[in-house]
Amino acid sequence: MELKVKIWLSDDRGEGFLGEGRYRLLHAVSRCNSLQKAARQLGISYRKAWGDIQAVEKHLGFKMLIRRRGGTGGGNSILTEPAEKLLEIFRKIHTDLEKQARRHFKQRLKKLCSPSR
Amino acid sequence: MELKVKIWLSDDRGEGFLGEGRYRLLHAVSRCNSLQKAARQLGISYRKAWGDIQAVEKHLGFKMLIRRRGGTGGGNSILTEPAEKLLEIFRKIHTDLEKQARRHFKQRLKKLCSPSR
Repeated sequence: MELKVKIWLSDDRGEGFLGEGRYRLLHAVSRCNSLQKAARQLGISYRKAWGDIQAVEKHLGFKMLIRRRGGTGGGNSILTEPAEKLLEIFRKIHTDLEKQARRHFKQRLKKLCSPSR
Repeated sequence: MELKVKIWLSDDRGEGFLGEGRYRLLHAVSRCNSLQKAARQLGISYRKAWGDIQAVEKHLGFKMLIRRRGGTGGGNSILTEPAEKLLEIFRKIHTDLEKQARRHFKQRLKKLCSPSR
């Protein structure tokens, strides 16, 4: 048994705009240097992927991608520096909260949840 | 803008069995002393509510409800002591992780996410 944690950024109206799905998309772009390849890896359309990126950009107020068109392979997309920074921070926060959750589980929940109690 | 947190308990196969929805159900039972009223408040069927409670009981290995049948109003259901304890711990952990998330947001994300950067 485990205590799981999910995090996401929401705007002032409480609407989430950056959670696990878009984090994965950005992370895939960072790995592939291509929005098209990233979308394919995640099994979503290019259109959806691009819409997701734009939604994040709109909320955060900075560009996530540097897009290079044309050339062999049809151009590529790399993450901007603040986008890479954002991913790094997001991952670190998630890792830290997971650690806190494990600690809480061990100290407070495990005993209560054990079938042998 | 805000960094939100969700927590849930999952079993050894990674399947979640106690998250926000079932937490709310148990909390409503605790308030109403009735599974039927709790289900109505949450807009779910009695059948679903009872199934949800049983699923949690099965995973945790203890009873969540003490059910009293009959009498005026058709009986009631109160939470067992460990169920109340579980709710309390769950709420405390969520509150603590929310606090940690706010701290992370303030210290690490806010500056990056500010539209004025």
